[in-house]
Amino acid sequence: MDYEEVRTFYLSRGFGGRVGYGERPAVVVIDMARSWLDESSPLGSANVAGVMEPILSILETARSRSVPIFFTTMAFDAAGEEAAGPVGRKLLHTSAQGALERDSARPELDPRLARRDNEILIEKQRASAFWGTAFQGHLIARRVDTLIITGCSTSGCVRSTAESAHNAGYHTIVAKEAVGDRSPLAHQCNLIDIDMRYADVEPTGNVVRYLGGLRER
Amino acid sequence: MDYEEVRTFYLSRGFGGRVGYGERPAVVVIDMARSWLDESSPLGSANVAGVMEPILSILETARSRSVPIFFTTMAFDAAGEEAAGPVGRKLLHTSAQGALERDSARPELDPRLARRDNEILIEKQRASAFWGTAFQGHLIARRVDTLIITGCSTSGCVRSTAESAHNAGYHTIVAKEAVGDRSPLAHQCNLIDIDMRYADVEPTGNVVRYLGGLRER
Amino acid sequence: MDYEEVRTFYLSRGFGGRVGYGERPAVVVIDMARSWLDESSPLGSANVAGVMEPILSILETARSRSVPIFFTTMAFDAAGEEAAGPVGRKLLHTSAQGALERDSARPELDPRLARRDNEILIEKQRASAFWGTAFQGHLIARRVDTLIITGCSTSGCVRSTAESAHNAGYHTIVAKEAVGDRSPLAHQCNLIDIDMRYADVEPTGNVVRYLGGLRER
Amino acid sequence: MDYEEVRTFYLSRGFGGRVGYGERPAVVVIDMARSWLDESSPLGSANVAGVMEPILSILETARSRSVPIFFTTMAFDAAGEEAAGPVGRKLLHTSAQGALERDSARPELDPRLARRDNEILIEKQRASAFWGTAFQGHLIARRVDTLIITGCSTSGCVRSTAESAHNAGYHTIVAKEAVGDRSPLAHQCNLIDIDMRYADVEPTGNVVRYLGGLRER
Repeated sequence: MDYEEVRTFYLSRGFGGRVGYGERPAVVVIDMARSWLDESSPLGSANVAGVMEPILSILETARSRSVPIFFTTMAFDAAGEEAAGPVGRKLLHTSAQGALERDSARPELDPRLARRDNEILIEKQRASAFWGTAFQGHLIARRVDTLIITGCSTSGCVRSTAESAHNAGYHTIVAKEAVGDRSPLAHQCNLIDIDMRYADVEPTGNVVRYLGGLRER
Repeated sequence: MDYEEVRTFYLSRGFGGRVGYGERPAVVVIDMARSWLDESSPLGSANVAGVMEPILSILETARSRSVPIFFTTMAFDAAGEEAAGPVGRKLLHTSAQGALERDSARPELDPRLARRDNEILIEKQRASAFWGTAFQGHLIARRVDTLIITGCSTSGCVRSTAESAHNAGYHTIVAKEAVGDRSPLAHQCNLIDIDMRYADVEPTGNVVRYLGGLRER
Repeated sequence: MDYEEVRTFYLSRGFGGRVGYGERPAVVVIDMARSWLDESSPLGSANVAGVMEPILSILETARSRSVPIFFTTMAFDAAGEEAAGPVGRKLLHTSAQGALERDSARPELDPRLARRDNEILIEKQRASAFWGTAFQGHLIARRVDTLIITGCSTSGCVRSTAESAHNAGYHTIVAKEAVGDRSPLAHQCNLIDIDMRYADVEPTGNVVRYLGGLRER
Repeated sequence: MDYEEVRTFYLSRGFGGRVGYGERPAVVVIDMARSWLDESSPLGSANVAGVMEPILSILETARSRSVPIFFTTMAFDAAGEEAAGPVGRKLLHTSAQGALERDSARPELDPRLARRDNEILIEKQRASAFWGTAFQGHLIARRVDTLIITGCSTSGCVRSTAESAHNAGYHTIVAKEAVGDRSPLAHQCNLIDIDMRYADVEPTGNVVRYLGGLRER
């Protein structure tokens, strides 16, 4: 079983066109918080650790060009209201309960990201950064036409945010080495689906070159 | 490579809880139109043919219990406006152009579905039945709490609609044999992702039994 | 000039039907925070004070019947990012700057509301409680079919939330004495528009009787 | 009673800032169809007739500069499904039934608008052009930052679309003489509310000058 055959088949049917870069990018860093990075968290995995360095190189260049940067994390009320409904039943069964409590340390961003005051942190409650948040409004107010997506997990929040951004009409770019998943197999398959359907999956080096080539705003 | 290992790993991390059925279901049949069913269409595939019979058995039982039924199809203006933007570039490159023209025969539903006057047809322009449509409003007006999803493609519109329904807060059920994909491999992997993250993937037999056990409204 | 003539004219044209109450209500209390209640706040007005007592009587009955209760407030990052875009320019010009800073005391709810742990506080950034928030998801997860709206301001957040709830498909009820506006004239005119277009404007006494008549869940 | 006092009071409290024009406008013409223009239609009114000439002058200039133009109309299935729910009960009681049937002539645009092939017609089912439609996606794909709103009715679909556009983050402009309402009083009061809260209400002459001053794309 090799998921590359899905790429080949989908390409042959007219999927997987290249969207390319637009003129006014923003960068979003998805869920780079302890909940997902620490092996001690029920949802966490050390498999994601490798994405930090590529993310930092994208952030450095983006900051040097005053490109808007957004971070997301995920948190629910300790009251655990959602746990009783369908969302909670699917996402937070058994051991995962408590992994996303708002007032615990786990939803906090990894300090290496060094979020600045003018970089908005979006607390989301579903996979997509667009669901139930003001993210779309921030992008429009900044006249963004291109969204560069980094973070985790490829098969969940990254794919979902890429689909939302595509739906909204943005040039959507996923930086290949800057996204990860607790399962390398889920990572590989979903990256191909994303590339065929929603976003251009681009080497991080290309993304950094694109950002570096922008005039500073 | 066996995607069942993704299921095992995700289950061990607290994903994949069972959502179960609620009390007021609706059924949605995704994109069972010539665009996707006819091998002659750029986007079509005979691989999807097998889902028709399970869908018809679900529809028969749903109709006998006056369960609301919705159909979707996908169409764009012949003007091809979207083709120029990111959505068109990703979805409709080269040969796929023209597969989804509004005034062609391809977006028409397969006549075996025998849509009735009180069963709403939703024309969508993205993968999810919820995006840019009044679908959500129809569900709320009918006090639906459970959405049963059938149709194609598993890796695209089915997964996306399942995620939207989960996000919205519905008991989301995907009828296993009633969904298909042009790629069997994409079908298998995405079905596991859906089951771990967004919806209960249930044997069609269970779905029919559940519907049959409802009192008629 | 008497806005009652608008009611008469709109009624004659087929607007202003009665929606009535459904079976599963929720109550939302809009923006009863210092930002809007304190005369010392740029956006605040003592004119709104009279709505507190009717709101408390609705809350008391709702709590006795375990009806879900939601509160909203409005806050922006001190970074003031939005102030630079169209939203900020319209809403927060000159003296109003700083009225809605997230980390100030002003967005805090009036303590008389005595919000309980299981009553969700929604921080919104536009007039409607539905915009950019998870409010819709909370309503669906609780199978709500009726939304009772209280708070302020009638011409802004109350009207806007009523319209969103109507759009979504809910039986939408505005409790007449439990909503207010810094301008009595804007209050009167908008209440008629709401009644003609989006929600039944009902005497608070009716709302309390309806809630009191529910079986406890 | 003079609604100008509402303007004065709201201005004194920090509302009513000027948003101004951006760089990439689009024009939307709301509901200029027989349903609203013909006195013979339950929802129609000759009071709106005067807006046609200002709209045509805006369209002429917009077309000369290749500014994207959108039209909306409103229609429901003859099946009348919505009529049974809250939306239908409020909007379509008694005599208004049938005013908005999809397959009748009433939802058709006034022929004087002379819609061109590349000007998208949006069929909506609520007041706002953004609700349940792909309108937002069209605006983003065209990198629009400014929405110029014309059509009817000021107290309904115009106000609602202006609020949605403001919420989304657009420079929102309502062309004063190009919007109308069956009730002159509702027109006047809502125009002031819109100007204080959501959009700059601008003389049509200013709008035409702004459009005329753009370089052709």
